[in-house]
Amino acid sequence: MTIDLLIHGPHVLTLAGDGVGYQADFALAIDRGRILATGPRSDLLQEYEAERTIDADGHVVLPGLIDGHMHTGMALLRGLAQDTRYWMMHGVGPFTPHLSAEAIDAGSRLAIVEALRAGTTTFGDFGWRMHGVCESLERLGVRGVVCTTIREAEQRIYAPGELYTFDPNLGRRQLEANLALFDRWHGAANGRIRVLFGPQGPDFVSRDLLLEVQRLARERHTRIHMHTAQGDRETEQMLLRYGQRSIPWLDALGYLDPLLQAIHLTDATEDEAALVATRGCTMVVCSGSIGLIDGIVPPARAFQAAGGSVALGSDQAPGNNNHNIFNEMKLTALLNKVRAQDPEVMPAWRVLRMATIEGARALGIAEEVGSLEPGKRADLILVDVRRPTMLPVHLQPMRNLVPNLVYSARGDEVSTVMIDGEVVFEDGRVQRIEEAEILAEAQRLAEPLGAAAADDFWRVNSPSARMMREGRL
Amino acid sequence: MTIDLLIHGPHVLTLAGDGVGYQADFALAIDRGRILATGPRSDLLQEYEAERTIDADGHVVLPGLIDGHMHTGMALLRGLAQDTRYWMMHGVGPFTPHLSAEAIDAGSRLAIVEALRAGTTTFGDFGWRMHGVCESLERLGVRGVVCTTIREAEQRIYAPGELYTFDPNLGRRQLEANLALFDRWHGAANGRIRVLFGPQGPDFVSRDLLLEVQRLARERHTRIHMHTAQGDRETEQMLLRYGQRSIPWLDALGYLDPLLQAIHLTDATEDEAALVATRGCTMVVCSGSIGLIDGIVPPARAFQAAGGSVALGSDQAPGNNNHNIFNEMKLTALLNKVRAQDPEVMPAWRVLRMATIEGARALGIAEEVGSLEPGKRADLILVDVRRPTMLPVHLQPMRNLVPNLVYSARGDEVSTVMIDGEVVFEDGRVQRIEEAEILAEAQRLAEPLGAAAADDFWRVNSPSARMMREGRL
Repeated sequence: MTIDLLIHGPHVLTLAGDGVGYQADFALAIDRGRILATGPRSDLLQEYEAERTIDADGHVVLPGLIDGHMHTGMALLRGLAQDTRYWMMHGVGPFTPHLSAEAIDAGSRLAIVEALRAGTTTFGDFGWRMHGVCESLERLGVRGVVCTTIREAEQRIYAPGELYTFDPNLGRRQLEANLALFDRWHGAANGRIRVLFGPQGPDFVSRDLLLEVQRLARERHTRIHMHTAQGDRETEQMLLRYGQRSIPWLDALGYLDPLLQAIHLTDATEDEAALVATRGCTMVVCSGSIGLIDGIVPPARAFQAAGGSVALGSDQAPGNNNHNIFNEMKLTALLNKVRAQDPEVMPAWRVLRMATIEGARALGIAEEVGSLEPGKRADLILVDVRRPTMLPVHLQPMRNLVPNLVYSARGDEVSTVMIDGEVVFEDGRVQRIEEAEILAEAQRLAEPLGAAAADDFWRVNSPSARMMREGRL
Repeated sequence: MTIDLLIHGPHVLTLAGDGVGYQADFALAIDRGRILATGPRSDLLQEYEAERTIDADGHVVLPGLIDGHMHTGMALLRGLAQDTRYWMMHGVGPFTPHLSAEAIDAGSRLAIVEALRAGTTTFGDFGWRMHGVCESLERLGVRGVVCTTIREAEQRIYAPGELYTFDPNLGRRQLEANLALFDRWHGAANGRIRVLFGPQGPDFVSRDLLLEVQRLARERHTRIHMHTAQGDRETEQMLLRYGQRSIPWLDALGYLDPLLQAIHLTDATEDEAALVATRGCTMVVCSGSIGLIDGIVPPARAFQAAGGSVALGSDQAPGNNNHNIFNEMKLTALLNKVRAQDPEVMPAWRVLRMATIEGARALGIAEEVGSLEPGKRADLILVDVRRPTMLPVHLQPMRNLVPNLVYSARGDEVSTVMIDGEVVFEDGRVQRIEEAEILAEAQRLAEPLGAAAADDFWRVNSPSARMMREGRL
């Protein structure tokens, strides 16, 4: 039979089973966006005629990478919020109010291009104005698991220790925006986009609104994506308002169940993380972002040890400062070794699974993506193993492909990205759009932000302001 | 007057003074390998005629990056030694005995190409067979601060806790190799290569030989580059042999003085690190390598707080697994934040200084390189700030160039590398050599290593062997 596409290569990591599913001289038959069959290269070359055949010589083929938690709309603030405590108030605080819808959309496209070039195929995007983001996800041909930030706390810079004031109108408006997003985009773009509900965190949303979100998510057979125990600032708010830490409070509220994707768990103890996992929630760990913003390594290992699935996330450009799952794989392995003072924990294969099949489980999309198996959507990447960072290739007695993907690759070794059976990055070019325009637009729309934020920036007087005055930036 | 080269651009980080020396619309006049003058772009364009003018539009110009500690000769073992305890014995142990001189040289060239493409201009190389490495450094046009590994402990796999046996003949042979290296290469390649003495560590070399090395280094007005307190394995050896930890033992021996570059300090307490700094030694911190191999963040901050200069180092491909100072800048900032649980420590500007001027001080070459100032050698790089990872560029109220260089850049944004006034990387190509040949040779010479090491690999039965059996690699 004639199919759309046949890919064959010397090295394929299918991520099927409980390892990495390495297959030598392997092939994938792809038709109408799905993987139709996999098997030895010689068999499939004989069995199928294809409209296009890709010879992945010199490459390793693996599932597209999954970024479980991003705020792509903040990308125009890259590099403006790090090396400071009180990141949210003192770091991004002076800048975020000045992000127009246009600047959010332009930033989102920049972030998508950056991540796509580094092999990200699924975008777990969480932001304020998501219609434009969804348009970009659709237009660039990528997969999205998205939600609107539902926040009830008034949007202003709070002093450390000041209790947030709730604005029910804001909460209502944001919930309605999330509902509208669901109605318009859930299942859109050939099913590539799914919409969840996105309360910003148990500190930012009242109890009643949290429960309403849960009811709506149940009704719509979708899930909740929420910053949970995201830092000492949240814990402080919860103690002030309810006299309890986030996890026990959410547990008592009946919020810890398979509906919830718990993002960060920065300030969760190992016992709390294990409890969240035991209740059937999943987790996204943003190692680069939380390491830089807080100097903390979240308890992802305790979550896994309790049986939970954990995805990786790049969070946001201001504070991480990049969207690159190769970076997150390396940092998740490295930072967990440092947390445990043990080089054997969080080995390369484990974080590669978190970036693929385990990440897909955490986002609830493992029946569709995350491994290269018949029936799944054809989301995959080709990584060039002839690049200096990937050389040499050893195959026996030990294969070094996975360690080199995790610890040496930078992301620029990705030479081809396919999503839903369509090649969206190839020959150094994002295929569906004119990349130069997206980059130029990002720069153009970023330029007014500085002037708009200047007063607040100097008034807040964060370490960055002092560094500017001292010629250190 | 007519000079060799004029470089001008919108953004120059000179690293002069105690900040990063940002200059807008700036120019550098370069002649006979040295920076002749720096100043406003318009002034220098008027003052000088140049054989070649480089317009660094869309780029930031900064000093070439300094890698203070590498074992480039091990690059063919990339990806074969991580996610395991007892790295030296169980990780690289099965493989290193099979590295031929040819394989070392081929690996070294691979590592140099990899690092050069990521902006490294000075190579602090430390290995067994250094003549070939020096030939490669000379041939590829880069700067080297090198030494031969002087080891007296017999070369075999020791069990944890087993005292090394010294072989004075081995020690003597290696010392003579280091002396021959000094005689042949110190000051060679237009002064680009300097030779130090390289005792492998106080645990690997007897007291007498250490003292002889010190005497010879003094006589030759050069320095000593030595793994110092490099891990609990070393501490155990020192306690077994001398009943003292490394730092107090070296202090009593009179070894802690400005002659010594102390590498790693992995197992040094903060007080010990401060003592080493106070004695006038310098330090190289290999954040990626020690993080992955040991799960440890060395006390670089304590060393700096005591007034010492610290360079960054990429160490070796098996265990790090790459040679990229952009990676080391990010990891040094991030891991120190995690060590301190404080995002304000080790800010971006500080690690950029460690990769440039502070690194040059640590290696004793700050009068020649490390900043862009008149009289210094012209070692510099151009980084493309129009790449997705470097966008957008903000200039006010806060410049994000330095944070983006440290936290977002991956190394592939480096578009031009100049060493000693010569452009050695440009237009995606290493200029002096045929890169494809170097990469192919690396792969060809790597292939027999696996078969040679297989028996030991399976016998040692490290976690990697188990991962292979379980399909996790």
